[in-house]
Amino acid sequence: MPSMTDSAAYSRSLTDAAVAASRSLASVPGKLRDDALHRIADELTGSIKKLQDANAIDLEEAKKEALPGAGAMLDRLTLTDKRIADMAAGVRQIADQPDPVGKVIEGRVLANGLKLQKLRVPIGVILIIFESRPNVTSDAAALCIKSGNAVILRGGKEAMRSNAAVATCVQRGLNKAGLDPRIVQLVESPDRTIVGELLKQTGRIDLCIPRGGESLIRAVVEQARIPVIKHYTGNCHTYRDADCDDEMALNIAVNAKAQRPGVCNATETFLIHKDAAGRGLLLRLCKKLAEHKVEIRGDEITCKLYPQAKPAVDADWDTEYLDLIVAMRVVDSLKQAIDHINVHGSKHTDAIVTRNLAAAEAFVQQVDTACAFVNCSTRFSDGGQFGLGAEIGISTDKLHARGPMGAEDLTTYKWVAYGDGQIRG
Amino acid sequence: MPSMTDSAAYSRSLTDAAVAASRSLASVPGKLRDDALHRIADELTGSIKKLQDANAIDLEEAKKEALPGAGAMLDRLTLTDKRIADMAAGVRQIADQPDPVGKVIEGRVLANGLKLQKLRVPIGVILIIFESRPNVTSDAAALCIKSGNAVILRGGKEAMRSNAAVATCVQRGLNKAGLDPRIVQLVESPDRTIVGELLKQTGRIDLCIPRGGESLIRAVVEQARIPVIKHYTGNCHTYRDADCDDEMALNIAVNAKAQRPGVCNATETFLIHKDAAGRGLLLRLCKKLAEHKVEIRGDEITCKLYPQAKPAVDADWDTEYLDLIVAMRVVDSLKQAIDHINVHGSKHTDAIVTRNLAAAEAFVQQVDTACAFVNCSTRFSDGGQFGLGAEIGISTDKLHARGPMGAEDLTTYKWVAYGDGQIRG
Repeated sequence: MPSMTDSAAYSRSLTDAAVAASRSLASVPGKLRDDALHRIADELTGSIKKLQDANAIDLEEAKKEALPGAGAMLDRLTLTDKRIADMAAGVRQIADQPDPVGKVIEGRVLANGLKLQKLRVPIGVILIIFESRPNVTSDAAALCIKSGNAVILRGGKEAMRSNAAVATCVQRGLNKAGLDPRIVQLVESPDRTIVGELLKQTGRIDLCIPRGGESLIRAVVEQARIPVIKHYTGNCHTYRDADCDDEMALNIAVNAKAQRPGVCNATETFLIHKDAAGRGLLLRLCKKLAEHKVEIRGDEITCKLYPQAKPAVDADWDTEYLDLIVAMRVVDSLKQAIDHINVHGSKHTDAIVTRNLAAAEAFVQQVDTACAFVNCSTRFSDGGQFGLGAEIGISTDKLHARGPMGAEDLTTYKWVAYGDGQIRG
Repeated sequence: MPSMTDSAAYSRSLTDAAVAASRSLASVPGKLRDDALHRIADELTGSIKKLQDANAIDLEEAKKEALPGAGAMLDRLTLTDKRIADMAAGVRQIADQPDPVGKVIEGRVLANGLKLQKLRVPIGVILIIFESRPNVTSDAAALCIKSGNAVILRGGKEAMRSNAAVATCVQRGLNKAGLDPRIVQLVESPDRTIVGELLKQTGRIDLCIPRGGESLIRAVVEQARIPVIKHYTGNCHTYRDADCDDEMALNIAVNAKAQRPGVCNATETFLIHKDAAGRGLLLRLCKKLAEHKVEIRGDEITCKLYPQAKPAVDADWDTEYLDLIVAMRVVDSLKQAIDHINVHGSKHTDAIVTRNLAAAEAFVQQVDTACAFVNCSTRFSDGGQFGLGAEIGISTDKLHARGPMGAEDLTTYKWVAYGDGQIRG
């Protein structure tokens, strides 16, 4: 374990290298960045044995320390042939997307003749802190390279050797493309004080994106003196309006809750207008969900209409279950539904099922959320589904980037003006 | 002075009111927001006497406490007839700009038929902390109303009564337009603990913009648990390339340094290529600047070529003089100039004077700055000059907004999808 002084020196040296690598990227054309991505993909598919050897050591240690129920974690950690092929394919897919760098956001010629443009440019140096899945190493590296940023990656202790093997492939690919391999660096120590030091590199590391559970993100926010884009919980809602297509409402409910309950865009609370509840939709909904083994925690009316429901307590409205559990509440009006979501939601994804245009528009305008959906499952809140290519995460912040984030969200802009001697009067 | 408990309760009640007012704005059309702005302008021009009476008390107290050299502060504080007319005109100008809210950033129909759009929406609740000039009250309020945000304004103690009188005009205008007057609230106490409490209203106040000196901004950043967009110093550079039009270089130098030295977009350091220095440009530049009473602090070569220069010390390269002083350094290459700016600059505005296209492009790409200018004065870095209408400040941050910020920079976006029952496979 490095001492405090060592970790300060190590994090400074990582940052120095990242800043230098970021500068070296400033004039690199998109074609060359894409070329590097294809070479990285080649390295990954050409290094299956090395990747799996490193992964085997991680798996062995993880099994030794594994607690009961760690099966899912061990599964996520395992680098099968298919997963390595998928990682390479993911990198190639990012390469094939349009270049976000240099895109003209707006531009005009001012009255004095100055040619002014607002151009997308890389952010600079990005720190990504993540947990168990080793594929994040290649995904995140690829998105940063695509968007012209240098990146410092800090993965979980349990995937240390696997991540290092992936990072070696990335750096070899960069090198073969003639780019600075320090564009992608991996923190090669589990020492947490290094993270603390990196989070204080104000003005040198431009952004931190933590990917993982809420406790990881809160710990990062607590320590950070650099900007952090947060990917907090997905406490998503689906509201059934008075006037809605009941069959559609049932299908969407099953999909939103039960198709993959462990992800952030699954719905955690169903709201239902009293008129829809009254005509039997609530009961049908509860029965249908029960068929899919979903536990229902209902408000008073729900429990009256469907006595098998457990009574919800206050905390249920604020909980991201990530499981086959849903909270259910009957509301008196669209306004009450909107107010409920604005109080309890996590500004991630919220949907309405309705036939009423005015209700759809009011919902979309008044719910304070990254993704406001009408008549579809909340499960569509995803960079891939949106057509952003790979995503670096789903921001629950409101500044800079909101909702699913792709490569373009890893850019900022620069105002560029060309003149011929203009001075200000 | 309120106690700690009082200030916590007061800041909570301000925030509650702002959140409620922000929600009430979500569906208000742009026309109605613009109508409110015109009514506010009417109130300002119709309240000259009341505004000046309030201002007179502020001025009297300020004079009592004034230290030598406070003349400039007293001048900034004074509400003359012309200044009130300008404030009203400023508000009308903001009203006449296009509505940033509802603008479609991008949109497409996905393969599954979902109609997806990325739409500009208000950020929510904004806290603006500012110093002496009372006109900021109406400017900032108008920009927030235009962009559909609720705002809490906290001005300097010295302008307390003037700000309150302006805020009354604003609230009366909102009221007459049928909007919630709590859209614009002024903190009516000089107690600093209130600011501390407001800066901790995570998830309820969405953004803080401090406007003022560096120490104000640092104090805000230190305390804030909510996002802050920083408007730090303008340590701007102008670099004269080897191949440049010497007359143009001289004109731009005088304008960038001496036209209005006290503002953030004035140039603080001149860099000059050794070839340009060698052919006599450095000497002509120094003499010309001396004619405009500019003190020169030069590196070794500058002092050799122009012995009247004072030798620069290390701190000079990092100083925002805001005065008739300039640091001057001779560089060996374009690369050295870019490196100097990337180390010492404040990412605000930096310019090159050159005839060489490749040099211009390298400078624009490689200097990490909000505004990269070619062949013009750094003084053009300004929201009004850029055509953004009024500006809320000039961001030296790289995320969300960079450089001059207008009403559109006070918006975020929302992903909106309309479907007809889509579920995820």
